[in-house]
Amino acid sequence: MNRNNGRANDQLRSVSMQRKFTSHAAGSVLIKTGDTHVLCTASIEDRVPFHIRNTNQGWVTGEYSLLPGSTIVRSTREATRGKQGGRTMEIQRLIGRSLRSCVDLTKIGERSIIVDCDVLQADGGTRCASITGGFLALMDAINHLVESGEIQENPIKYHVASVAVGLVQGEVVLDLDYSEDFGADVDMNFVGNEFGEFIEVQGTAENGAFSENHLKEMAAIAKAGIQSLIEEQKSALKSV
Amino acid sequence: MNRNNGRANDQLRSVSMQRKFTSHAAGSVLIKTGDTHVLCTASIEDRVPFHIRNTNQGWVTGEYSLLPGSTIVRSTREATRGKQGGRTMEIQRLIGRSLRSCVDLTKIGERSIIVDCDVLQADGGTRCASITGGFLALMDAINHLVESGEIQENPIKYHVASVAVGLVQGEVVLDLDYSEDFGADVDMNFVGNEFGEFIEVQGTAENGAFSENHLKEMAAIAKAGIQSLIEEQKSALKSV
Amino acid sequence: MNRNNGRANDQLRSVSMQRKFTSHAAGSVLIKTGDTHVLCTASIEDRVPFHIRNTNQGWVTGEYSLLPGSTIVRSTREATRGKQGGRTMEIQRLIGRSLRSCVDLTKIGERSIIVDCDVLQADGGTRCASITGGFLALMDAINHLVESGEIQENPIKYHVASVAVGLVQGEVVLDLDYSEDFGADVDMNFVGNEFGEFIEVQGTAENGAFSENHLKEMAAIAKAGIQSLIEEQKSALKSV
Amino acid sequence: MNRNNGRANDQLRSVSMQRKFTSHAAGSVLIKTGDTHVLCTASIEDRVPFHIRNTNQGWVTGEYSLLPGSTIVRSTREATRGKQGGRTMEIQRLIGRSLRSCVDLTKIGERSIIVDCDVLQADGGTRCASITGGFLALMDAINHLVESGEIQENPIKYHVASVAVGLVQGEVVLDLDYSEDFGADVDMNFVGNEFGEFIEVQGTAENGAFSENHLKEMAAIAKAGIQSLIEEQKSALKSV
Amino acid sequence: MNRNNGRANDQLRSVSMQRKFTSHAAGSVLIKTGDTHVLCTASIEDRVPFHIRNTNQGWVTGEYSLLPGSTIVRSTREATRGKQGGRTMEIQRLIGRSLRSCVDLTKIGERSIIVDCDVLQADGGTRCASITGGFLALMDAINHLVESGEIQENPIKYHVASVAVGLVQGEVVLDLDYSEDFGADVDMNFVGNEFGEFIEVQGTAENGAFSENHLKEMAAIAKAGIQSLIEEQKSALKSV
Amino acid sequence: MNRNNGRANDQLRSVSMQRKFTSHAAGSVLIKTGDTHVLCTASIEDRVPFHIRNTNQGWVTGEYSLLPGSTIVRSTREATRGKQGGRTMEIQRLIGRSLRSCVDLTKIGERSIIVDCDVLQADGGTRCASITGGFLALMDAINHLVESGEIQENPIKYHVASVAVGLVQGEVVLDLDYSEDFGADVDMNFVGNEFGEFIEVQGTAENGAFSENHLKEMAAIAKAGIQSLIEEQKSALKSV
Repeated sequence: MNRNNGRANDQLRSVSMQRKFTSHAAGSVLIKTGDTHVLCTASIEDRVPFHIRNTNQGWVTGEYSLLPGSTIVRSTREATRGKQGGRTMEIQRLIGRSLRSCVDLTKIGERSIIVDCDVLQADGGTRCASITGGFLALMDAINHLVESGEIQENPIKYHVASVAVGLVQGEVVLDLDYSEDFGADVDMNFVGNEFGEFIEVQGTAENGAFSENHLKEMAAIAKAGIQSLIEEQKSALKSV
Repeated sequence: MNRNNGRANDQLRSVSMQRKFTSHAAGSVLIKTGDTHVLCTASIEDRVPFHIRNTNQGWVTGEYSLLPGSTIVRSTREATRGKQGGRTMEIQRLIGRSLRSCVDLTKIGERSIIVDCDVLQADGGTRCASITGGFLALMDAINHLVESGEIQENPIKYHVASVAVGLVQGEVVLDLDYSEDFGADVDMNFVGNEFGEFIEVQGTAENGAFSENHLKEMAAIAKAGIQSLIEEQKSALKSV
Repeated sequence: MNRNNGRANDQLRSVSMQRKFTSHAAGSVLIKTGDTHVLCTASIEDRVPFHIRNTNQGWVTGEYSLLPGSTIVRSTREATRGKQGGRTMEIQRLIGRSLRSCVDLTKIGERSIIVDCDVLQADGGTRCASITGGFLALMDAINHLVESGEIQENPIKYHVASVAVGLVQGEVVLDLDYSEDFGADVDMNFVGNEFGEFIEVQGTAENGAFSENHLKEMAAIAKAGIQSLIEEQKSALKSV
Repeated sequence: MNRNNGRANDQLRSVSMQRKFTSHAAGSVLIKTGDTHVLCTASIEDRVPFHIRNTNQGWVTGEYSLLPGSTIVRSTREATRGKQGGRTMEIQRLIGRSLRSCVDLTKIGERSIIVDCDVLQADGGTRCASITGGFLALMDAINHLVESGEIQENPIKYHVASVAVGLVQGEVVLDLDYSEDFGADVDMNFVGNEFGEFIEVQGTAENGAFSENHLKEMAAIAKAGIQSLIEEQKSALKSV
Repeated sequence: MNRNNGRANDQLRSVSMQRKFTSHAAGSVLIKTGDTHVLCTASIEDRVPFHIRNTNQGWVTGEYSLLPGSTIVRSTREATRGKQGGRTMEIQRLIGRSLRSCVDLTKIGERSIIVDCDVLQADGGTRCASITGGFLALMDAINHLVESGEIQENPIKYHVASVAVGLVQGEVVLDLDYSEDFGADVDMNFVGNEFGEFIEVQGTAENGAFSENHLKEMAAIAKAGIQSLIEEQKSALKSV
Repeated sequence: MNRNNGRANDQLRSVSMQRKFTSHAAGSVLIKTGDTHVLCTASIEDRVPFHIRNTNQGWVTGEYSLLPGSTIVRSTREATRGKQGGRTMEIQRLIGRSLRSCVDLTKIGERSIIVDCDVLQADGGTRCASITGGFLALMDAINHLVESGEIQENPIKYHVASVAVGLVQGEVVLDLDYSEDFGADVDMNFVGNEFGEFIEVQGTAENGAFSENHLKEMAAIAKAGIQSLIEEQKSALKSV
């Protein structure tokens, strides 16, 4: 198959993660995967949601938004419409579950860390970039709490990253851009950790259906892609 | 593992599907999978959403709701709160995509079929029961259109059904009830068709993570469960 | 006048009340009056609305909804529109006042009982059926509290039931179905108790106006209908 | 019974109706019944609601609001809360039905008349004052259309007015003020026309229940009160 | 320039301020500036907004609304639309800031005074009339608190009033009515105090732009107008 | 006065404007004024708001948002709260009016240009930066339409920019950062054009009041600041 930019089927787009992109939030990462750019910030609040109050643990959650100008056809601002759409809800629930999974919530005290993922430019794979970049922002916020002595022990269990895999014209391809995603028969998002395990799998046959074998093949290629992204996270942490 | 009611790990709960449970909607099915009871109705409207207007095709969508009294602790009515929650949004988008996948939308004319899944009693697996029962309601509505001559050719591509699989105490188990779901490490929903293919996969590691092998094992057991549910659908269609 | 099914002007539709239709709510009744089917559940919560907090009494309230598939033309789901309509508000306020009137709120402790009336199939008289069936669900919930010793003394003052009366082509008729209601000049809902007294009267001249004599005649026929419905409630309570 | 200001049980509060209180709306009436003051304006729009479009008839509707400063304890502004409460909805539906009943909608063309009832000062009976004063504003708006030749024939069928009746300490009393209403066992609103007929009856036993005889007695006293109010309307029409 | 009613460019419309127009709110003023009529009420509540709780001070705020019938073309009721529009928000924030500026909030205890400005008839300059009349209502409410001994010391720093100035056909004119405002190139609202100082300035070039000199000229003419309005406030305070 | 970074009272913060910061919107500018960073995008839509439909002209409007992580204390996402706050409304109305003033709307055809101003990092003066940067994004979008031949004639009347001026400890200072703004007695925003004229003036005495002379002094210093910002815009346009 001929992919945009001559990528191999199992090749990621070029990726960069710029930490401290803004300075007010405890963690702030601008992640670029190809032409998808997401600003991920992690903010700390000294309160937790009602349902875990007085249980001596903390909370990690995520929010997601497409900036109106991030898409080729302008996206209506959800604050103007008065509610978040179903797609946004679905995505931010995924981000929240994924990032929560890697933190031992009993070790962060009664505080919340909110990871905001605002898409500055969208070219496919925004939810995956949000998780991969959001993890890094979360880590910076947690390291800040550890360094300031506000929490005693590092609660991070493992790195988490996410990538999309698709079935396009019968072939399994990694990290689809918008034009590839648009024509894909199956679009599947995998979230995994640095031990090669999965945390979330979300796959949709937009057109047709897929076999048990395709599922296995997609899982294998995603697993490798996630490992590469985690390597990038680790490099980014070494700078500054 | 000792399951409730002594079920084997790969055994479904008892299931029944009562067609024509109510009489005003074009399709109306009360599905019971164990103590989970969902009323699925399919209503036909002579208009389509804005984005496909004038494209000479139809639309299939789903809506989902927990009746307030369906849960042990009463669920707040979403109409009273003024919006649908994220979980509801996520579920009804899944229902919509699943049911849309099995219909050739170019064959149903410019009309919409809305499948409403209202949970009368919830004991785990409500989204799966909604899809399995919703398919049958959809089929009845479409058969009605075929029989009345409003559409020429049956647009159904295949039967669709859905089942949950979980990882509980290291074992893969099929069709979790609420108490099993509550303690599961992984909760995975599969939607598949009568040809053994998958249409949607949604899995979450609520606690920990899962390996590529676990994913394969869960897919296999889900595939078998889906086939049994499709057999039940076919029996139900034979009765009046 | 020739009524559907050859009913006499002062004859109720056939009525049935199935208790324990679902099992999670403290009271659960499926009431059928002709082709109108309403699921009424009563749920208990250990808190009361703000305005009666710390007054050492409880609260009883009602909520009402038409399931989307309950009507011949599908009813839009109010949770999707983001608010309850005026008709729903009006009806659920009526249900709440009616059911509150029969309970000595000072005897149930600081707890709320919410009676949810979800219409599965609508053929006229849904608000009346909601009150009549809702009373039974409420009674089951209260009996549960009495039996478990959570409240000391039975706080029910009397049975409550409701019926519609209409003026159709100059004649007073009882318990209108949808087709009769549609053509009625006056539509009047009466709520009464087992002592032959009224609790609520709501009448509207949809077309024209009505005289003092018509009001008296409608009240008399409603009073008799309510007594019959209360007999049905008492029979239903005798079965398990 | 000793009433405030020494009123007899069947005596109305002093009433005044000032037409042309403001000048932009087609009809504008400040009605005062005792210390209850309501500004009723009738505005004409050249469009009708969706459900009667292209049926060659018009529409009459009502809206209601308590100004925040109209009550002893300030009422929260509903626009700030983001929705109209149930009480407001219930009242404005009553106003709309009442005023619609007296107009032959087929004679006013495809236009809407909206009667806004904004309570400047509330002392009980605001919904009744809204209907009584709203009728006069509606009549002025319609006369304006007749005089300008925009409609050919006067579509008003009869005068409409409304009054509350209550059961206080076992006695039937007319036109309750707020302090009387607060202590009443039954509160009943009657809407009637100049021919002594009723259009709407809405009664609630706030405390206890009421007999068939009480209903008759309340209807009789209301009927007389409505006639007096209609006399007042007719006098007001004679002044410029 | 020929103005309506032959006013000079620097002449105010006739103004009247009727105190105690309604009796339930602590302050109630009907202000008329020409054909613009606004009912301003000041209500006292024994709580303060979250952000100043436990700081031993009070709060003053304003709300604003056009009654639907106040304008020539009916204004949609904001409570019906479910939210306040941008214009309303902008205006009520201006009212709140203006009235807050003249009160020493540390002297009124932990209570709020809400000044509601409801426009009964709109003919331009409604926000200015709201501030000028609202000040008087606020003063009456505060005097009530002083007289009853609930606050010890009068916290009013100075009188506040507001007027609009415009640039119409190259000339600076004071206190525009609606027809003048409609054709103005610049519309500028000034809020000032009795010492000739300004508290708020809000100017918009609706059409074109304005020079530094025009700004100076408008400020001078507004300053004089505000002094006249403050004289009117002082006269109104002398009557009953 | 000692300002942060040793700025003179009439000195702007360092400013940069990076065009084409993102690539999907027709104009995209990242403006930095000190530590305030705003992403301004201009998107073109082939429709206009209802009120100017069929008038053969176009529309320019603005929207504004603080990203949640842009502030030291995280700002709640307005889409989550379900509505835009008053401050946001006030600001985006100001942006819209300011940018509309410089475009001849009759020359852009029936299309809308929406300028979205999303604050990535907030340190005071975000509304001014939004206007200054938004103008540049708007210009790029319009140049795109001119170059592609979609509009015939350049409709831009003049450059527009905006700056804040404050009264701090009795001194007039230009372009306040957040810490200066917090302690200012007066905060005034000026919008002006390249001809030294003003388009909008919005000033608030947060604490105390200000004299006519202060107003003149603030206008003069703002006028100079606006000219410097317009020079920066012109330089930015010369780069690719």
